[in-house]
Amino acid sequence: MDYGGILLIAIVASITGGTLRNLFLEERPIWLAQPWYFLAILLAVLITIGLRITKPVGKVVLGLDTLGLAVATVSGVQFALDNAAPSYAALILGVLSAVAGGLLRDVLCQVEPVLLHRETIGTACAVGALVYVLIEPTALPNEIVALISGAVIILVRTISIARGWNLPKVK
Amino acid sequence: MDYGGILLIAIVASITGGTLRNLFLEERPIWLAQPWYFLAILLAVLITIGLRITKPVGKVVLGLDTLGLAVATVSGVQFALDNAAPSYAALILGVLSAVAGGLLRDVLCQVEPVLLHRETIGTACAVGALVYVLIEPTALPNEIVALISGAVIILVRTISIARGWNLPKVK
Amino acid sequence: MDYGGILLIAIVASITGGTLRNLFLEERPIWLAQPWYFLAILLAVLITIGLRITKPVGKVVLGLDTLGLAVATVSGVQFALDNAAPSYAALILGVLSAVAGGLLRDVLCQVEPVLLHRETIGTACAVGALVYVLIEPTALPNEIVALISGAVIILVRTISIARGWNLPKVK
Repeated sequence: MDYGGILLIAIVASITGGTLRNLFLEERPIWLAQPWYFLAILLAVLITIGLRITKPVGKVVLGLDTLGLAVATVSGVQFALDNAAPSYAALILGVLSAVAGGLLRDVLCQVEPVLLHRETIGTACAVGALVYVLIEPTALPNEIVALISGAVIILVRTISIARGWNLPKVK
Repeated sequence: MDYGGILLIAIVASITGGTLRNLFLEERPIWLAQPWYFLAILLAVLITIGLRITKPVGKVVLGLDTLGLAVATVSGVQFALDNAAPSYAALILGVLSAVAGGLLRDVLCQVEPVLLHRETIGTACAVGALVYVLIEPTALPNEIVALISGAVIILVRTISIARGWNLPKVK
Repeated sequence: MDYGGILLIAIVASITGGTLRNLFLEERPIWLAQPWYFLAILLAVLITIGLRITKPVGKVVLGLDTLGLAVATVSGVQFALDNAAPSYAALILGVLSAVAGGLLRDVLCQVEPVLLHRETIGTACAVGALVYVLIEPTALPNEIVALISGAVIILVRTISIARGWNLPKVK
């Protein structure tokens, strides 16, 4: 894949989840009004290429990826609730925000989608989103709700990777 | 594929067509306000896994699939007309409602899309949708228009499967 | 692939880019109100099949494809600016209008996406779109801005094909 293709895949993987979430809620995608969105992606691509990071994904990248999933899920649930989505729909939109980009990335790269076959990405995000919508109606301030839910996502994914947990597969 | 992946594919296959139709018509997806949508999908996945239905698709499943195509097409055409789409666009949105989910399912599962290579799914839905927009301007009540169009879809698909009809392929 | 599949791929390749652009700008897809859109696609498919054009892509088709990219990019940028998108977003929406259809076509046909691996489709469109948003604020009439930007796209792609230019690939 050439450098243009890499940049395009990076953009698609970054903005797909939030873009779908906003379309479903009848809002304009956030990147339409926020140029820093693309500057951040461009910077990340330049750093990755500049450092010639082509080794297999290591602990740092995996940690950043988990953090990204947590942020995407939590902000997705929050945005959905702020836009009059019922709790169950906010849960689904939160998970969608986090996983849709990686799914489309894998499809465009013609590799087996990680989301469907390995790891517990979807499970971790779903559990965190569930915690969010369950504790959101309490008196807890929004920041605390977000921190707890995000921590749950990071915990579930980190533990499941460390212990090699997977959802059962069809026999 | 693990159980989470199966649930995700079931959701994607079920809601993609109607979701796209609504986005194109500038309406919120129906599942955003209707939780029973997901309960029905979850139930269907649990039944399928519980009964360990992993045999090749049989007559009952094929019949249910054809019924689903008919319902999706007819309700898609109806919804489009109700939302100020012209007849030709309602025809296309009806077919889209019925076939988009299966197409995305096949892409995510990395198999050859059934829609593009085999069977007469698209043709059956297109013929039924055409019948709908042709007889809808008559004095016939909506229910009868829907029943006739749905019956046409079921007939075309059932006969074409029974007789092994296919659209001609490029030589 | 049967004739129905070919028609469907032709439709998807033609309308995806503009449809996404409109959804992101909260506008209805243009084909919802313009039936000639589908008539043109149908005519193109009939001509292609009628003439049994199954030879490898030749100079005429490549020229038409480049012209199509230029028209899609320029009209995409213009439409985005007309709908209150900032310049950087109009640039991205212009490129998206031009390349999304071909990308989805390749995914549905299960072939390696041309956009990501070969040629300079994306680069040519991005350069042309950049020229558009740079010279649009000047006193030049819109038609001239569109012609210059379109010519840039055609030039960049034609030269890069003639000279075998490619973006560098990751080693």
